Amino acid sequence: MQTEFGFIRNLRNYRNFSLIGDDCAVLPKDSDNDLVITLDMLVENVDFRLRWATPEQIGHKALAVSLSDIAAMGGIPKWTLLSIAFPAEVWKTDFPDRFYDGYCKLAERFGVEFAGGDISQSPDTLIVDSVVGGEVEHGRAILRSGARPGDLVCVSGSLGGAAAGLAALERGATADSARLLLPEPRVELGRRLFATGQVTAMIDISDGLSGDLWHICEMSGVGASIDAASIPIDPIVHSVFSERSDRLDCALNGGEDFELLFSVSPEFAVADFENDVSVIGEITANAEIMELKDGNRTIPLNPDSFRHF
Amino acid sequence: MQTEFGFIRNLRNYRNFSLIGDDCAVLPKDSDNDLVITLDMLVENVDFRLRWATPEQIGHKALAVSLSDIAAMGGIPKWTLLSIAFPAEVWKTDFPDRFYDGYCKLAERFGVEFAGGDISQSPDTLIVDSVVGGEVEHGRAILRSGARPGDLVCVSGSLGGAAAGLAALERGATADSARLLLPEPRVELGRRLFATGQVTAMIDISDGLSGDLWHICEMSGVGASIDAASIPIDPIVHSVFSERSDRLDCALNGGEDFELLFSVSPEFAVADFENDVSVIGEITANAEIMELKDGNRTIPLNPDSFRHF
Repeated sequence: MQTEFGFIRNLRNYRNFSLIGDDCAVLPKDSDNDLVITLDMLVENVDFRLRWATPEQIGHKALAVSLSDIAAMGGIPKWTLLSIAFPAEVWKTDFPDRFYDGYCKLAERFGVEFAGGDISQSPDTLIVDSVVGGEVEHGRAILRSGARPGDLVCVSGSLGGAAAGLAALERGATADSARLLLPEPRVELGRRLFATGQVTAMIDISDGLSGDLWHICEMSGVGASIDAASIPIDPIVHSVFSERSDRLDCALNGGEDFELLFSVSPEFAVADFENDVSVIGEITANAEIMELKDGNRTIPLNPDSFRHF
Repeated sequence: MQTEFGFIRNLRNYRNFSLIGDDCAVLPKDSDNDLVITLDMLVENVDFRLRWATPEQIGHKALAVSLSDIAAMGGIPKWTLLSIAFPAEVWKTDFPDRFYDGYCKLAERFGVEFAGGDISQSPDTLIVDSVVGGEVEHGRAILRSGARPGDLVCVSGSLGGAAAGLAALERGATADSARLLLPEPRVELGRRLFATGQVTAMIDISDGLSGDLWHICEMSGVGASIDAASIPIDPIVHSVFSERSDRLDCALNGGEDFELLFSVSPEFAVADFENDVSVIGEITANAEIMELKDGNRTIPLNPDSFRHF
């Protein structure tokens, strides 16, 4: 059975869908700016559970995942459209109103206008599809395909917190689930990085560090070498997992942190970003080979993070 | 329990979502053109059934419903994005490839570029959400809100064919289901109507004539009087239903014909559109009152067509 990524690669190669394969589609807008546009579908019991998240949190997350895609292009989000299919028993509750409360509160915070949507009925599964459109200076959207050997690999914030939160929820603990349930899209940071002019490729970490780094390597025709000791691990990971190998696995392969993963020219001034950006490795010329340096050992780094199929 | 239309009205009124309520959102693009953008979610066993439609037909329909919204604004479709959630057992089959075949064949026919999408897993229901973006001359998108008393009410093509096809399928007959399964978006007609400069309000018939006319009346603050004898009834309706009342009900309240319903100034030259446009009534000053003239009788015309909730 093919993976979703293989399927998407086939769409790109055999159907000549040259536009696909980045966090956002980049389309012509006017002489100054391009339109960047993304959509993300969240499915009940795959991407969220009604018993773990409040309606407001689900609304927040539905928009946050798309805002994060705009951030990964260096764009400014402008407007949103939303499709929802509600099961009848969910429609009858206060869920729809509270969902929109969460969605709109985040939209307002980023100055994003709610421009329309579609409401459908679903037999039994709640489905949300959020579209966000934004702008980026013409020809300057940051793609996945620009990484060059010798570039540094960087990541924002810390990793593994969402996966650790999920593990905690599965054990019945709710205290550490904020990163999973209320992800913060790194829109301002994306613009600050854009402004340096030194970011050569960028993606948001939705599937997980290993898988999302793989997307950059594949699209750029490069490899990467990552230093395990440099990966910023979320404190929540330490409180949830006691074994070092579990902690590293969480940071490497846990999804949904919605931090930015990017490559930069070597002269990038990481100190300008205080402790919010970490250099974790470098881009190599070994096309599509990723490795992890862990102490004295160098081992293959496989894209083991989340995929649907 | 509130209806979906009541809910949407509340979004517009209480959340100041002034942009919503038309077939497409209208957003600024450049000095010449606005961006028109729409999205439509189709849910298995609500909007289509895998046992009645081929994968190619479902792909065709997923795009056609959104192209139809662009047509209803007088716009030109340009690009599309697509979210799909596949149940695992559907993903394993040739469904995804055949679905994209149907989707892309229609996209190509209208010069619409496939710009990206999202693939998810769904526990058991296939869900498709298609986004289409297009362009229309700045400030000139045809809204639902421009109908004026004295305008003529017109409809394109013929009505009831999709509902009659559904009734036939429910009885086990498949011969008459083409309108339901392969709807034809009226994009060229929408542009021709736009070019007359005389269309004051327009919508595509997705819910049904009575319900979609109601949307125009509500948004324009007007009423409408429809002449039953002038409604163009699809020949398929005649072959499926023998009673006149069933035939009329099918044409008035059957959804998914994806014809254009619009109001025009009285000087509109309907003859220029051969037999493809019918004048079926007129807009009145009786705000939100719709009536049906049937022979000597005039009866209230209620918005009885499809709604999800």
